[in-house]
Amino acid sequence: MKKNDQKPVSKVAVVIGAGDSTGGAIARRFAREGYTVVATRRHEDALNPLVQEIEASGGSAVGFGCDARDEAAMGALFSTIENEIGEISVVVFNIGANVRFSIIETTARVYRKVWEMAAFAGFLAGREAARVMVPRGRGTVIFTGATASLRGGSGFSAFSGAKFALRALAQSMARELGPKGIHVAHAVIDGAIDTAFIRDSFPERYALKEQGGILNPEHIAEQYWQLHQQSMDSWTHELDLRPWMETF
Amino acid sequence: MKKNDQKPVSKVAVVIGAGDSTGGAIARRFAREGYTVVATRRHEDALNPLVQEIEASGGSAVGFGCDARDEAAMGALFSTIENEIGEISVVVFNIGANVRFSIIETTARVYRKVWEMAAFAGFLAGREAARVMVPRGRGTVIFTGATASLRGGSGFSAFSGAKFALRALAQSMARELGPKGIHVAHAVIDGAIDTAFIRDSFPERYALKEQGGILNPEHIAEQYWQLHQQSMDSWTHELDLRPWMETF
Amino acid sequence: MKKNDQKPVSKVAVVIGAGDSTGGAIARRFAREGYTVVATRRHEDALNPLVQEIEASGGSAVGFGCDARDEAAMGALFSTIENEIGEISVVVFNIGANVRFSIIETTARVYRKVWEMAAFAGFLAGREAARVMVPRGRGTVIFTGATASLRGGSGFSAFSGAKFALRALAQSMARELGPKGIHVAHAVIDGAIDTAFIRDSFPERYALKEQGGILNPEHIAEQYWQLHQQSMDSWTHELDLRPWMETF
Amino acid sequence: MKKNDQKPVSKVAVVIGAGDSTGGAIARRFAREGYTVVATRRHEDALNPLVQEIEASGGSAVGFGCDARDEAAMGALFSTIENEIGEISVVVFNIGANVRFSIIETTARVYRKVWEMAAFAGFLAGREAARVMVPRGRGTVIFTGATASLRGGSGFSAFSGAKFALRALAQSMARELGPKGIHVAHAVIDGAIDTAFIRDSFPERYALKEQGGILNPEHIAEQYWQLHQQSMDSWTHELDLRPWMETF
Repeated sequence: MKKNDQKPVSKVAVVIGAGDSTGGAIARRFAREGYTVVATRRHEDALNPLVQEIEASGGSAVGFGCDARDEAAMGALFSTIENEIGEISVVVFNIGANVRFSIIETTARVYRKVWEMAAFAGFLAGREAARVMVPRGRGTVIFTGATASLRGGSGFSAFSGAKFALRALAQSMARELGPKGIHVAHAVIDGAIDTAFIRDSFPERYALKEQGGILNPEHIAEQYWQLHQQSMDSWTHELDLRPWMETF
Repeated sequence: MKKNDQKPVSKVAVVIGAGDSTGGAIARRFAREGYTVVATRRHEDALNPLVQEIEASGGSAVGFGCDARDEAAMGALFSTIENEIGEISVVVFNIGANVRFSIIETTARVYRKVWEMAAFAGFLAGREAARVMVPRGRGTVIFTGATASLRGGSGFSAFSGAKFALRALAQSMARELGPKGIHVAHAVIDGAIDTAFIRDSFPERYALKEQGGILNPEHIAEQYWQLHQQSMDSWTHELDLRPWMETF
Repeated sequence: MKKNDQKPVSKVAVVIGAGDSTGGAIARRFAREGYTVVATRRHEDALNPLVQEIEASGGSAVGFGCDARDEAAMGALFSTIENEIGEISVVVFNIGANVRFSIIETTARVYRKVWEMAAFAGFLAGREAARVMVPRGRGTVIFTGATASLRGGSGFSAFSGAKFALRALAQSMARELGPKGIHVAHAVIDGAIDTAFIRDSFPERYALKEQGGILNPEHIAEQYWQLHQQSMDSWTHELDLRPWMETF
Repeated sequence: MKKNDQKPVSKVAVVIGAGDSTGGAIARRFAREGYTVVATRRHEDALNPLVQEIEASGGSAVGFGCDARDEAAMGALFSTIENEIGEISVVVFNIGANVRFSIIETTARVYRKVWEMAAFAGFLAGREAARVMVPRGRGTVIFTGATASLRGGSGFSAFSGAKFALRALAQSMARELGPKGIHVAHAVIDGAIDTAFIRDSFPERYALKEQGGILNPEHIAEQYWQLHQQSMDSWTHELDLRPWMETF
C-alpha cells in the first residue's frame, strides 16, 4: 500500500526553483535517497554548484536552465526528463517572489510578474506533473507556501495574491488527483529561512539562527521527504513549518 | 461618525463589470440613492439598456466601454470620472470568469485569462480606487467573491486561483487602507445567481427560483448598499450570501 | 419570498444576555420595529432599566431572570414565551465570558464556567429556538462571536475554546436548519465594544471612541436587524464587524 | 538544536486515551523508540493487552486507569509519572467522542459529556503537560483532531463543538508555549480509521481498507513520531491526514 511500491529503477525528483537555500536542500535530500534529481533555475550556470555537490556525494543530478513561466519550456522540460532520464516520481515547486509595496506603489508590472513566478509557473509545473503522473496513477507534487498563503497582509497584495492562487491550485489538484493516486501537498513555511537574503537584510532576525529562530532548509527538506514517504491511507495535504519562537 | 458625512453633492458609484445580473442590480441600487453611477463593461453598447433604465427611473448613469485588464484604460477611466463627473465614493469590482476544466485540460491561455479578468483587473480597480480615496480618507471598495474564493475545488484551478488572489487583494487592501478611512469588503456569493447563464445551463437549479433557491441580484445589491452604509466603528470586511437551501 | 411574510401579529425577539451594551441595544432595535422583546439576564432586576426604556419609547418588552446554563430554566422560558407572549421570530444569543489566563493559571473551574456561559448556554438557546422554529419553518437565530471565535490566542484557552464551540454550533445549526427555513447567523465582533468594562479597564482604547475606534452597540444592533431582514435567497451565515482602525 | 538533545535516560510518552486503535499504535510507536509509555484509559484492565504487547516486544509500558475528565485524577497521574517513572517528554491526547444527532435530539447530557471527554479532558491533559514541561523548556504535546475540528456539519453540534474547542486549546497553547520551548501540535484526522467501530458500522467503507481507503493507525502513529522529531526551527502546528480517496 506504500504508494511507491512499484517504482522503476530510475526515479526522478524534479525541483522547480532549486535556489541556494530550500530548493537546493530538497534536491540534496532526495538525491541522498537515490533519486536522480532534476534541478531547475532560470540560469543553468547557477545550478552547477548544486549539481556538483550532489554528484560529489555519490548522488545523481542534472541542472536545467528553464524559465518556469514559459509554457513551451516547461512542456519540453518534462518531456525530456521522462524520455531521457526516468520516471518523474516527485515534483517540488519552490519559486517564490516576496515583495512588499503599498497598494498605490504596486505597479501592474510587479503584480503580474510576481503572479507569473509564484502562481502561473506553479500551474505549469503542476499541470505537467499531472500529465505524466495520472496515467501511472502515482506521484507526489509539493508546493511551497508561505505566511502570505493564508493571510493578505498590508502591503502584500501582489505576493499574497500569488501565494493564495498557488494554494488554490494545490487544493484543486489534490481534490482532483488524490483519487487518481497522486499526492498533492502544500507546505506553509511561516518564518524566515536561513538564506543570504535574510542574513543580509534582517541581521537581527538572522542572529536568532543559533537558537533555532530561523528555518533550516535541511529541516524543511526533511519534511518534504517525509511527505513523499506517507502511505496512501494517510496523506497530508497541508502542514505548516515555523520556528518555535515565531509569532503566529 | 458616518463615514460619508461630508459627501460632496455629486457622489459617484463605479461598478466595474456591470453585467445584466448582479452588476446591473448594484448600479440601480446606488442610483436609487442618488449616486451618479458609472457602469463599465467591455463593450459600451451592452451598457445602454442599463443606463437607459436608470435614467428612466430618474437616476443618473454613464456607461463606459473599458477592458478592465488594461492598465492605461483603467487609469484613464478613474481620471475621467474624477475630473468630469464627481468624487468616487464607491467602487464595486464585479467581474467573474467561472470556468471548470480538469487540471490537464486547463490551457495556459485559459489560466492566464481567468486571472486577468477576475484578479488582475480587480487589482487595477482596487489600486485606482485607492489612489483617489486615500487622499480624501474615505470611500468604499467592494469585491465580489464566490464559493471558489474559499475552496479550491476539483476542476477549478484557474477560477479558484483567480478568486483566491482577489480575496488576498481585498484582505491586503483592507489591512492597509482601513486605518486610512477606506472601507474594503469582500462578499462571498455562495450559490447560483438568477442569470441567463444559470437559467439556460442549469434548468433544474433555476426551477428553484420561486422558492428562493437562487440568489436574487437585487438582494445582493441591497447587501452591497448596506455595506456602504456601515459606520466606521462597525465595518464588515467579509460576509457570505447564500440561498437558504444551499449546501455548504 | 421574504421569510417573514406570514408573521402573526405578536412577533417576539428573544435576547439571551441582554446586558447594558450590545444585548440591550439589540433589544431596543427589535422593539423599535414592533417586536415584543423578551430580554434575559441572570438577575431580573438588572433588566428593569432596559424594559422601562423600551416601554417609555412605546415599545413592548418583558424581562426574565434566567440562568441560561440551566436546561430546565431555558426550556421553561421558551415555553412561557410561546404560550403567553407570542411566536418567537428571532433569538439572539449574546452571552460572553472574556477571560485571559496563562494555561497553567487556568483553573478547571474557570475553563468549565466560561464554556457553560458562552457555549453550553448557546447550545440550550439554539436548541430551544430550533424546537419552536422548525415546525413553523421560519425564524432567525443569531450568535455573537468574537476575535477569539477564529483564533486561539495565547492565554485564551478557555475563552477561545468556548467561542470556537459556539461557532461550531452556529455552523452545524445553519447546515441543518437552513434547508428547514431557519436562518442561523454568527457575527464575529472583532474589536472593543463601547462598554463600561472597556471604559474602565482600557482607557486608552476608550479614548478612541470619538473617532470610531470602538464598536458602537447601536451599530452592531443595526447589523443584527439587517441579518433578520435578509431574504431567504440571500442569507449571510457569518460576517465580521470591526472598527476601521482595528488591526486584524 | 534538536529539541530532545538533553533527554534523561528515562523518557516518558503519555498517551491519554490509549484505545485499541490510534492510541495503542501511538503507544507502540514511542515504545519502539525506547520511551517508557504510560497509557491511560478509563478502565485499567482494558490496557493489559497493550502493555503486554509492548513489553513482549522489549519495550516498557505502564497502564493507568484514569478518568481523564477528573481534575484530581489527572493531576495525580502526572505527579506519579514524574515522581516514579521519569520525565514526561511527550503527551498525546487522543480521546474522541463522535456522536451525531439533530440539534433538537441533542440532549444537554450528551452535549456536556462529549465536551467533557473531547475538550475538557484535553484541557486538563494540556495544562498538566504544561506544568511539567514549562520549567524544563522542552516537551511535545499532540492533540488528535478530526474533520469536525474544522467544520460544524449538520448533526454535529456536540462533536464539532468539542473538537473546535480542542483546536482552540491547541492553538492557544502553541502560541503561549512555543516560545517557551514546548511543541504543541494538532493533527486533523480526516477520514475513517481502521477500527472495530468502522468495521462493524460501515462495512462498505471498511471494504476499502485493502486499497488504502481507511487510515491505518500505525501510519498515524508514524506521523506523531515524526512531529516529535521535528527540530525547533521547523515545527508543525497543524497537519491533516486523509486517505488518498477521501473527499474533502
